[in-house]
Amino acid sequence: MKRFVDLAAVPREEVLALLALAQRLQHHPEPRALAGKILGLVFFNPSLRTLASCQAAMLRLGGGSFVINPGQGSWQLETRTGTVMNGAAAEHVREALPVLASYCDALGIRAFAEGKDLAHDLAETTFGAMAALIDKPLINLESAANHPCQALADWKTLDDLAVPRSGRFVLSWAWHPRALPLAVPAAVLHMAALRGMEVIVLRPEGFALPPPLMQSARQAAAGAGGSVRETSERAAALEGADILYVKEWGATACYGDSAADARLRAALTDWCVREEWFATAAPQCRVMHCLPVRRNTAIADAVLDGPRSAVQLEAHNRLPTQMAVLHQLLKS
Amino acid sequence: MKRFVDLAAVPREEVLALLALAQRLQHHPEPRALAGKILGLVFFNPSLRTLASCQAAMLRLGGGSFVINPGQGSWQLETRTGTVMNGAAAEHVREALPVLASYCDALGIRAFAEGKDLAHDLAETTFGAMAALIDKPLINLESAANHPCQALADWKTLDDLAVPRSGRFVLSWAWHPRALPLAVPAAVLHMAALRGMEVIVLRPEGFALPPPLMQSARQAAAGAGGSVRETSERAAALEGADILYVKEWGATACYGDSAADARLRAALTDWCVREEWFATAAPQCRVMHCLPVRRNTAIADAVLDGPRSAVQLEAHNRLPTQMAVLHQLLKS
Amino acid sequence: MKRFVDLAAVPREEVLALLALAQRLQHHPEPRALAGKILGLVFFNPSLRTLASCQAAMLRLGGGSFVINPGQGSWQLETRTGTVMNGAAAEHVREALPVLASYCDALGIRAFAEGKDLAHDLAETTFGAMAALIDKPLINLESAANHPCQALADWKTLDDLAVPRSGRFVLSWAWHPRALPLAVPAAVLHMAALRGMEVIVLRPEGFALPPPLMQSARQAAAGAGGSVRETSERAAALEGADILYVKEWGATACYGDSAADARLRAALTDWCVREEWFATAAPQCRVMHCLPVRRNTAIADAVLDGPRSAVQLEAHNRLPTQMAVLHQLLKS
Repeated sequence: MKRFVDLAAVPREEVLALLALAQRLQHHPEPRALAGKILGLVFFNPSLRTLASCQAAMLRLGGGSFVINPGQGSWQLETRTGTVMNGAAAEHVREALPVLASYCDALGIRAFAEGKDLAHDLAETTFGAMAALIDKPLINLESAANHPCQALADWKTLDDLAVPRSGRFVLSWAWHPRALPLAVPAAVLHMAALRGMEVIVLRPEGFALPPPLMQSARQAAAGAGGSVRETSERAAALEGADILYVKEWGATACYGDSAADARLRAALTDWCVREEWFATAAPQCRVMHCLPVRRNTAIADAVLDGPRSAVQLEAHNRLPTQMAVLHQLLKS
Repeated sequence: MKRFVDLAAVPREEVLALLALAQRLQHHPEPRALAGKILGLVFFNPSLRTLASCQAAMLRLGGGSFVINPGQGSWQLETRTGTVMNGAAAEHVREALPVLASYCDALGIRAFAEGKDLAHDLAETTFGAMAALIDKPLINLESAANHPCQALADWKTLDDLAVPRSGRFVLSWAWHPRALPLAVPAAVLHMAALRGMEVIVLRPEGFALPPPLMQSARQAAAGAGGSVRETSERAAALEGADILYVKEWGATACYGDSAADARLRAALTDWCVREEWFATAAPQCRVMHCLPVRRNTAIADAVLDGPRSAVQLEAHNRLPTQMAVLHQLLKS
Repeated sequence: MKRFVDLAAVPREEVLALLALAQRLQHHPEPRALAGKILGLVFFNPSLRTLASCQAAMLRLGGGSFVINPGQGSWQLETRTGTVMNGAAAEHVREALPVLASYCDALGIRAFAEGKDLAHDLAETTFGAMAALIDKPLINLESAANHPCQALADWKTLDDLAVPRSGRFVLSWAWHPRALPLAVPAAVLHMAALRGMEVIVLRPEGFALPPPLMQSARQAAAGAGGSVRETSERAAALEGADILYVKEWGATACYGDSAADARLRAALTDWCVREEWFATAAPQCRVMHCLPVRRNTAIADAVLDGPRSAVQLEAHNRLPTQMAVLHQLLKS
């Protein structure tokens, strides 16, 4: 493995090997495995778990890291090609990224969706152009429509919770004050499909996941013995559910139009997950969320603080899975 | 010792053991003592000495660290319970802190006073709620009304300066453009009392330290053979003083009312420490301040640059004492 | 060597030894050379290469680092002496820098020119005052009129490119939306002169490099068998050139007057390096720039992406030369 940018691009057996490696590293530390190795981290957007788990993973394996935040202590970076750079950006990623890559053994990049043009974001135009500049192992720390590190941690969490491979996995939209990117729902949808689960995407009208994402997930499900469908009927979707994976995202019916998005979501504040949602779910149904989560807007306090919540385990799993990815990319 | 959040909660003999350990580590380095160990650092507020000394201490002992600045490159964090989170904060400390704790071996948190409600701040409501979320060794890097790392470094400084245990320690208010928290005066008052010194709190009317702090310090003094009193008479307070510890803090008579505080302090610009202050002090009387200090508003250039100043030694002592605390919390 | 603050202050044979050390470390790593050593980094201004290469260099040599950004997560620092500090700055460098130096084995400081008074900036008044406070090995990470780490990396780049010692080195001004400091042109001018090259400074009227810089470079050139001259005639300057080193800087005819500077540069947008510039240059003439560079304002895409560009090699060389400087300052 030379890059970890898209879980869908990693053969299923390699994903399973990464999960096994994560379990091994969790229980049998290798404190010198990456001695002398350096991870460069470029964060165009805020981060808590990704930043801390990447740095902790390198330290746990004996390596180190450095962090660049463009525009915050470091130059603002231009990503568009062909631009006459007479604005705020002092440097172009065409210079910055190969330079940073030359200082380290692997580079991780976080660059959220621009949220203007759906096709542009789904095509990973910006991240793809950046990835093409780098001749070192590369990790996608969340791009416009992907978050493979989150997806891998989520898969491990399902394994840790002993959720059956063929279990019922409901990915539900939740309310948020504004439109958020598709990266996590896209990555998680594919992950659950690739795991072979019965996946149901529950979302209000106007928030359907884009057809290419659904189609790709259906293909992955077909190969793994699972299925993917979508609905806006909450009770039916949650019937017998083993997992409710909660995530906020922007309206796809009017992608990039924040006023239209706001009008659509104004009536949807009841898409805040409460205990009542689980009336028809499997008794042991657990709640997942990639975090950060807004309490009492996306998920109620009682659910987050109750026995259904698996968000802590899920977030903790960012560390062993990050260690596995780094170990796989960097161990000589 | 599992936590270092309040010097008053550490038995006196354990404080003395930490001071002895700091001396030992200063003179006999243990460059692999914390090999493979990780310190997570969460800074809700600015820091220079605390940040740098914590990171340097881990490096000196063979370990590493990561830093999260909520709202600066990382999500803004909510601390209030029960809130409907539809504002600026993307995440709640109830999620963020246990997650970060799960990535490291010890967590340090800096969270200044809110400065609105005195009882709330003195009760350490915010820090206490955060501390309750963490099941790892925890270090208070300054909370609403405490700063145990500073207090420990100050104690070591008094020892290094060979100030007698029963010496006269004057903690004096000094001018600042606005109200600052009570954390340092509270911690230092208790430290000097616990060391057994003759402690005099010198402050203008309206700036008396809250009775619970004075009472707790008097109790500590009683147990250690010292005493605590307060006055607004500068010359009398400084008579025979061995140490003048300078600190700025907000008016307690009108805590949380910045306009009233500003009116009170408007007439107090002569509370800038100058050489004249020492007319009646012991000839070798030294000046301490936790830093950062505003020159020529809190302390005059001539004093800071003169032979009385111990601020450099005091700040430098943040490193060996931090090493001692981390060694004690993390060394297997 | 105790400090690396000015290449002109380092004897020529020591510069050559640093370059040899950089080559050695590049090809024969010493992963434990600086085990347990700490580099403190203070960035008053943004940085990408300097920050990342310093941190990577310490990691590659087995050491560690910490970073302080005054005003961003750390206190805003005052640099002027004698000030009554009742403004935004909470701390003076007179306290902050010795304290930070006491936490590490070497300190690096970046502090750009104030850009108001040319004599003040050329005299390195601010950096000099800061340097005088520090009793540890010190590295200048770019001061008002110097950037020795960049100059050393550039020298190595010339060696790597096998540019003859006596080759023709054209340092050309380029357009930028606003006045930039003289640090890089000053350092690079001196470096090329000290290397013994035929140096030509190409710049429009109003942008001549200050006479003291030219004079000092001429002296260095004389000792090394090279020469230094200046012109505003582009074609003549580039005739037979081996290297075109591109850099933006502010008008020296009206230093500190941003309106006058803007008027002067308004007519100079054709000072964007394009392939046509090389009509009379040596066929293999290469382009250097310290980065960050604004594409299509200072240098055209076609040049940066074409075979003449050496900017990636140049930026990469920041790492081995930084390792050499740190190794020299810190290896026991």
